[in-house]
Amino acid sequence: MKIGVVGATGLVGGKLIYLLEKTLLPIEEIRVIASSQSSGKDLLFKNHKIKIQKLSDKVFDNLNLVFFMTNNDVTKKYVDIALEKGAVVIDNSSVYRMKENVPLVVPEINPFTIKKENRLIANPNCSTIQLAMILNALGKINSIKRVDVSTYQAVSGAGKEAIDEYLFQIELYNKSTLIPKILPVKDLKKHYFILNNSIPQIDKFSVNGYSKEELKVIYESQKILGLEFSISCTAVRVPVLNGHSESVTVTFSENVDLSNVYEILNNSVNIVVLDDIENQIYPIAEICQDRSEVFVGRIRKDLYCDKVLHLWIVADNLIKGAAANALQIAEKCYQEKIYGW
Amino acid sequence: MKIGVVGATGLVGGKLIYLLEKTLLPIEEIRVIASSQSSGKDLLFKNHKIKIQKLSDKVFDNLNLVFFMTNNDVTKKYVDIALEKGAVVIDNSSVYRMKENVPLVVPEINPFTIKKENRLIANPNCSTIQLAMILNALGKINSIKRVDVSTYQAVSGAGKEAIDEYLFQIELYNKSTLIPKILPVKDLKKHYFILNNSIPQIDKFSVNGYSKEELKVIYESQKILGLEFSISCTAVRVPVLNGHSESVTVTFSENVDLSNVYEILNNSVNIVVLDDIENQIYPIAEICQDRSEVFVGRIRKDLYCDKVLHLWIVADNLIKGAAANALQIAEKCYQEKIYGW
Repeated sequence: MKIGVVGATGLVGGKLIYLLEKTLLPIEEIRVIASSQSSGKDLLFKNHKIKIQKLSDKVFDNLNLVFFMTNNDVTKKYVDIALEKGAVVIDNSSVYRMKENVPLVVPEINPFTIKKENRLIANPNCSTIQLAMILNALGKINSIKRVDVSTYQAVSGAGKEAIDEYLFQIELYNKSTLIPKILPVKDLKKHYFILNNSIPQIDKFSVNGYSKEELKVIYESQKILGLEFSISCTAVRVPVLNGHSESVTVTFSENVDLSNVYEILNNSVNIVVLDDIENQIYPIAEICQDRSEVFVGRIRKDLYCDKVLHLWIVADNLIKGAAANALQIAEKCYQEKIYGW
Repeated sequence: MKIGVVGATGLVGGKLIYLLEKTLLPIEEIRVIASSQSSGKDLLFKNHKIKIQKLSDKVFDNLNLVFFMTNNDVTKKYVDIALEKGAVVIDNSSVYRMKENVPLVVPEINPFTIKKENRLIANPNCSTIQLAMILNALGKINSIKRVDVSTYQAVSGAGKEAIDEYLFQIELYNKSTLIPKILPVKDLKKHYFILNNSIPQIDKFSVNGYSKEELKVIYESQKILGLEFSISCTAVRVPVLNGHSESVTVTFSENVDLSNVYEILNNSVNIVVLDDIENQIYPIAEICQDRSEVFVGRIRKDLYCDKVLHLWIVADNLIKGAAANALQIAEKCYQEKIYGW
């Protein structure tokens, strides 16, 4: 297989290159593609130097599969070109996720939505993936009526510049008057310190007082699960380098039994239950680093309603929340021989 | 008035001393009391040095009012002594909060629960106060059926040692292998880095999988509001120095109108609405420092149910969440001449 990775020098692209070193995909060529800033430089893949190629129409010639691990603008400009040149595209941007004929895939949940005709597959939003993984498992107990999510999202979700800004705030703590310029949203007017603040804004605000990030969680999780249920999200950036956490309340249509919940979650692929509060075992960001599983704990019933369950969900937003999920999609397509590779 | 402050060298005690400099209480004597470690040292009050006195039975002689701004152990040992010696006690520990004959007071909400017979008044938990302030206002719109809270609680809530641990983690970031020893709960076995983690444990775990902190929010807010409603809480420590944030979902018994919500909140004493998302105005921890108001924003209706409202509540946990609320209780008692001072 000849595989292209657009955005190879970004945070998610970098994680994907790293994961591709161990993939089951039979890689004949890997073409790493980035903006003009990085082109010409080298990147290591299995200890071999690979020259980074500049984004252009031509760079998509003769590829079976292209991962777009970049922003909406690059996706809008180049995905069609990659498709026209015959590649299958797995896109990590939000451009195509809610389009009707584009499968939005978490391989553990809805791989069956990928058909031969779909040459473009969308990779969901990071905070959506970890939520959907758990909701999909819980939905086997009985039907989900309502979900309320409050997120604790890491700085890495906002990219390299945001990480630099955060690390600078740590390094120069008490020593300098830094002016924040990146977080919460780089191309908006106001910027706030992420160190020592929980910022209730991720991405721009959209309709009805919700941020785009919140709407992604709301609409994408319903599309992935193929279900309609009431759902709210409050998306918050916290001073955590990497690893998203979520406080989730799930209301079922019927009373829920805790032993069922543990059984279902314990038997779900790529879900790890860390829930032994007597020994202070629960998921935190540091344990999910570079892991492609979703971690869940603090599982408990509501004190007032037997249909309501509360849980705490943590995952590496760059791995299962982005790069690993995208790669799993490709591997699933390969195993199922959907596209003839 | 002769006023004692127990725990004067602690974080909350220190804030109270600072606030007492500007109180309307007619202070004749201020007696600052601390554990043996600090006794004998000086403390500044209105630019005068005051000698810190050691905790003992005798130290409570001839006081009208004693603030206990310390832990449960000190409260258990000394509150009765202060009461026996004739002082009124305002206690910030959790020991007496849920006792039937002890008023649990947020002065903006239920000052009328303080009677002459109650010589002991409990100051509520920090995360409870800011929540109760907003729920009390919202309850005027129509009755509250259910509340779901996810907290983003600052390190300062765990005391000076926790702050030191956090600041060390910042200072030595990348330079040393620090071993966390204080957070999340000092006298439990496991400790985790707070920097770069959102830790879903505040205080020890209690029944049914809930932490004591979560149960405080659940039960104290119902006592303060004098109402029974379904409520859940997930209490999480985040790498924020000072200032608690809360993501709150409120379900009313009837459909709720946003303009009513803004009107009620805007007209509530000591509540500041910061909610102009187009201009990225919403509460964050840094704006609430040393403020005794509660800040609220990100106010929006649920996308699926007209009875459900979501909001983001921020307050200084040491000020309105502790010291200022305690002082406001005392000032209210003075203004209402409840105890003859």
